[in-house]
Amino acid sequence: MGRVSPSYTVTVRLLADESVSSNEIVSAVTKVEAILSGLDVVKSDRAGLTLDLTADCYDSEHRRKLVAELKSLGGVKILSVSDSTFMAHVGGKLEVHSKIPVKNRRDLSRAYTPGVARVCTAIADEPSKAHLLTIKANTVAVVSDGTAVLGLGDIGPAAALPVMEGKAILFKEFGGVDAWPVVLDTKDTDEIVQIVKAIAPAYGGINLEDIAAPRCFEIEERLREELDIPVFHDDQHGTAIVVLAALLNALKLVNKRIEDVRIVVSGVGAAGSAIIKLLMAQGAKDIVGYGRSGALHADDVEGMHPSRRWLAENTNPRKVKGELADGLKDADVFIGVSHGDILTPDDIAQMADNAIVFALANPTPEVDPLGAAQHAAVVATGRSDYPNQINNVLAFPGLFRGLLDARVSQITTEVLRVSAVAIAEVVSAEELSPRYIIPGVFDDRVAPAVAEAVKLAVKDLPTRQIACQEHLPTAEEACQEHIH
Amino acid sequence: MGRVSPSYTVTVRLLADESVSSNEIVSAVTKVEAILSGLDVVKSDRAGLTLDLTADCYDSEHRRKLVAELKSLGGVKILSVSDSTFMAHVGGKLEVHSKIPVKNRRDLSRAYTPGVARVCTAIADEPSKAHLLTIKANTVAVVSDGTAVLGLGDIGPAAALPVMEGKAILFKEFGGVDAWPVVLDTKDTDEIVQIVKAIAPAYGGINLEDIAAPRCFEIEERLREELDIPVFHDDQHGTAIVVLAALLNALKLVNKRIEDVRIVVSGVGAAGSAIIKLLMAQGAKDIVGYGRSGALHADDVEGMHPSRRWLAENTNPRKVKGELADGLKDADVFIGVSHGDILTPDDIAQMADNAIVFALANPTPEVDPLGAAQHAAVVATGRSDYPNQINNVLAFPGLFRGLLDARVSQITTEVLRVSAVAIAEVVSAEELSPRYIIPGVFDDRVAPAVAEAVKLAVKDLPTRQIACQEHLPTAEEACQEHIH
Repeated sequence: MGRVSPSYTVTVRLLADESVSSNEIVSAVTKVEAILSGLDVVKSDRAGLTLDLTADCYDSEHRRKLVAELKSLGGVKILSVSDSTFMAHVGGKLEVHSKIPVKNRRDLSRAYTPGVARVCTAIADEPSKAHLLTIKANTVAVVSDGTAVLGLGDIGPAAALPVMEGKAILFKEFGGVDAWPVVLDTKDTDEIVQIVKAIAPAYGGINLEDIAAPRCFEIEERLREELDIPVFHDDQHGTAIVVLAALLNALKLVNKRIEDVRIVVSGVGAAGSAIIKLLMAQGAKDIVGYGRSGALHADDVEGMHPSRRWLAENTNPRKVKGELADGLKDADVFIGVSHGDILTPDDIAQMADNAIVFALANPTPEVDPLGAAQHAAVVATGRSDYPNQINNVLAFPGLFRGLLDARVSQITTEVLRVSAVAIAEVVSAEELSPRYIIPGVFDDRVAPAVAEAVKLAVKDLPTRQIACQEHLPTAEEACQEHIH
Repeated sequence: MGRVSPSYTVTVRLLADESVSSNEIVSAVTKVEAILSGLDVVKSDRAGLTLDLTADCYDSEHRRKLVAELKSLGGVKILSVSDSTFMAHVGGKLEVHSKIPVKNRRDLSRAYTPGVARVCTAIADEPSKAHLLTIKANTVAVVSDGTAVLGLGDIGPAAALPVMEGKAILFKEFGGVDAWPVVLDTKDTDEIVQIVKAIAPAYGGINLEDIAAPRCFEIEERLREELDIPVFHDDQHGTAIVVLAALLNALKLVNKRIEDVRIVVSGVGAAGSAIIKLLMAQGAKDIVGYGRSGALHADDVEGMHPSRRWLAENTNPRKVKGELADGLKDADVFIGVSHGDILTPDDIAQMADNAIVFALANPTPEVDPLGAAQHAAVVATGRSDYPNQINNVLAFPGLFRGLLDARVSQITTEVLRVSAVAIAEVVSAEELSPRYIIPGVFDDRVAPAVAEAVKLAVKDLPTRQIACQEHLPTAEEACQEHIH
């Protein structure tokens, strides 16, 4: 049987007559190895006790087993069975709040007509004031066409919405950034670019999410060129930041330099190519990327998508060819962003001493992490139930916090790089260990550290990139100049 | 000098040394006829008292006068001047909140991965569940291209944003509806239709706002045809609902029937044409619409936009021609949604006995309301500083509350009509008077009454129109069927 995951929490409402004891009910839960987290009396009358029993189960099958076990008890009648995850989603997970009260005419005339007209006029006269006087100041669009959602693939915009809502929650919880889901009922690259450009006036940044490769590359590139707000593709850049952060700390542990190590990357889609580019920006020289048909190398670029061709031409200096498992021989670092169970612990054993293995495929890693740990010095996964979880939430909230605060118009590779360094540095020398190379998701030091690093980095950017920032009035100036 | 409007509230921070008394400062405010609303000590030190003086002014000129008067006092130094309306807008007026806590891994796995994947799958399998398990359940898009904003005209999407944010606040405050501003950087009809269709998966309704006529008619019509969520154009239908509500009550007062009265409508744009259609749905027979070139009549429809042509062919049964002022002779009702100061009280004097005058142009009504009241039995305006304010906020929050609760896929004229009747009926027979024909904006009986009326009306709609509702599972069913 699998692990208990709280996402499979079930609440069973049952009527228990006097012939059955609470102990028997609890025993039934224990018997099927579910984990009881609550047993609450809803009401008590002549028919018996109505109870809400809440328990964590392994999976749907396990849930059914629990309910069957309870049903089989004499004196118990099942009234309803509900699922905490679904209940948490009823009505949607986000709401829109006013930041100012509107309880009387005075409030109304300030937030709406007639007062609002003066604010509109001020923005019409000087558009950059929108960055200060509207939701653009603190709001990011989480844009998806629903074509590459989690491990589910192309499930469409409506089905992708719960993920985008969840993402918005993380933006707010960790970065204080207001984020809004923009799920698009189109897969057309031109149309997506056109729509995002059209809706951009309300947003201070664009977070692209779960858009299939290679379409995502062109969408991101064109939006970066055509918009004057930061455009980020979390599946690419978010993953790359956190991988680099973890790698920097892992390399400290094994006392190797990024410039010297041999790095193997399995998966050259959105995440893989962004990881490779960011590692190169940090100084990595020997990277070999593997797709489904083996190692990318400059001798075979016929018919390749331009983004992949770039990788083939700019990586793999030793011109390695062949299969992934062969390529692992003497490699110092393995980074998998591809598919589950494609390697065995024996493959890992071929790597150099003190190997670093990041097996990030979800939910099943490229290689069994416990098996890999027999041969590698450091192992990380994308899962929360093993040490060293590589989770994008470490990057995007702080990154956008910094970008919005600094009112930067563009994201540079350097911004991504310093974000990674900032995350890595949250783990102190004393804390650093093979089982702790990356801060936990709820580590509240992370987002502020990333935001600060971003703000520091953009200070040195050329003027063009922060033109908007330079000409933007402060809050006080913006409010005052309509008076003087 | 004009009226005091709290939208011109100013806060002056000043340093007063010991040579000046608080009395002198207060006198300076009184002297320029500003209204003092606060005088607070910020700090006190050897330099003197630092005070925040808050006052309401008439307009910008008046504010300057106040500041000049304060400056002229011996012993006073102005430190800063700020504007409450602008300060209230800093950072935008809306924020996005999570409805569920995300404080630990258990929360996270429910709101986001891995738990969210099951919700996504459920929606992919049965798309109508998005109405229940995502923000679509309670969220309306407030869509504008910024081309017809308040009295400001075509100020563009960024400058329109503060209005749309304000609108979203009203949706939440009065209807409990989450609304999100979608301001579009395009004026192209096809593109607007295409974009709204593409973003629709996240929304349970579309509120079009401040889009210039005649483009707005086509956009609304096409979206109504192509979307399975309600599409509402507030400038048309919201205004029409509240006008009909007020007219029903005004007619009660003068003891006339809507079927019998002669109605003159000045302005046949978005609002005017919607008003005319809704009055006809309520039984009005004799309506003459006036545009810039006089009365619309069926003899002259050459080259007219289809929406205007429809009006010309379906109104004005007596084939009245000529100017607005002439048309007022013996009319029972005047409804102006056009321009300020186009009529004189003498024009109103020509109307039938017990005339009803709705002069709704903002900020300057078609005729001076006090002058009109000399000759008319009932006068209403769009302004909050006269009795009988016709304000759309009486309609849209309750209307969408009802539409979302009933999960209706379409808005019918009957829905608009019953909304108007519900608003009118909030004013009891005892309350009804020439100065109180319509509830106040903050009357909390209005939105629930409208929502109930809408829900009742859609119950009787043909199946097609509520197909979505019929097949949608209840919250309990949706959550349970993933278990059984």
